Amino acid sequence: MFDDILAANRDYAAGFALAGLDPRAAKGLGVVTCIDSRIEPLAMLGLRPGDAKILRNAGGRVSDDVLRSLALATHLLGVERICIVQHTRCRMVGATNEEIRAAIGPAADGRDFLPIDDQHRTLADDVRAVRESPLIPGGVSVAGFIYDVDTGLLEPVVP
Amino acid sequence: MFDDILAANRDYAAGFALAGLDPRAAKGLGVVTCIDSRIEPLAMLGLRPGDAKILRNAGGRVSDDVLRSLALATHLLGVERICIVQHTRCRMVGATNEEIRAAIGPAADGRDFLPIDDQHRTLADDVRAVRESPLIPGGVSVAGFIYDVDTGLLEPVVP
Repeated sequence: MFDDILAANRDYAAGFALAGLDPRAAKGLGVVTCIDSRIEPLAMLGLRPGDAKILRNAGGRVSDDVLRSLALATHLLGVERICIVQHTRCRMVGATNEEIRAAIGPAADGRDFLPIDDQHRTLADDVRAVRESPLIPGGVSVAGFIYDVDTGLLEPVVP
Repeated sequence: MFDDILAANRDYAAGFALAGLDPRAAKGLGVVTCIDSRIEPLAMLGLRPGDAKILRNAGGRVSDDVLRSLALATHLLGVERICIVQHTRCRMVGATNEEIRAAIGPAADGRDFLPIDDQHRTLADDVRAVRESPLIPGGVSVAGFIYDVDTGLLEPVVP
């Protein structure tokens, strides 16, 4: 099932050009964004490998696991500023837990899938959750953006 | 603090070439990997934008939030096979909760940061957690790999 991936990886390794990169984020950036296949987190921000720590989950939501990763990124890995980037035409926007649970089945009963009703408000809440988390150092800058998957443009929403 | 990012994004949007991509994963792939800045998840697997859903957290661990995202990716977004990709020289390998909590401070007391002791065993446990999750459809293939940040090669560890 994964032979295509392994063959492609051998080609990648044959031309490998990233040896020796420092494990700390060279531009001091952490980016929280969605798992969406239309998003290129580094390219859309003008970044290269080595520059940033990239965190991705469904919706680009500030879950407890994102706070875990951001705590590590800020305290141990050189991250000093954090962009939370949600996006247009996201499957989670307008979805409801009821609809999602019905699609997944009984195992999903009672779970919160973190769907997004009002994206601007959710983004503001998520930025605030990082700013107010005692796991994140006070000097870290946090801002919220919406990425337009049709134009490639970032809209600054929570300065 | 984010002017450099927004300026770089305007350049990206001026040459934007991804309009019209389908939101479903064209190659049916979901990839769980680490936030590490040395990893290029698409390139290392021979993939392009549109091909895969990418999930990233510290360590590339199967957290509860990863299961949430994978449930959505498999039931709603076309993912039929999942690669869990941890990597060499990961900051989480050999780390302990005690050391991490000491670095972060009192807010971290009692939290599990999901450090990795034996990476092969952890990867096998994480693959099993996805396979056994009732949130993931039975027909989905799951495998575990370790990516070498010095050579670019993927080692298949859990077939």
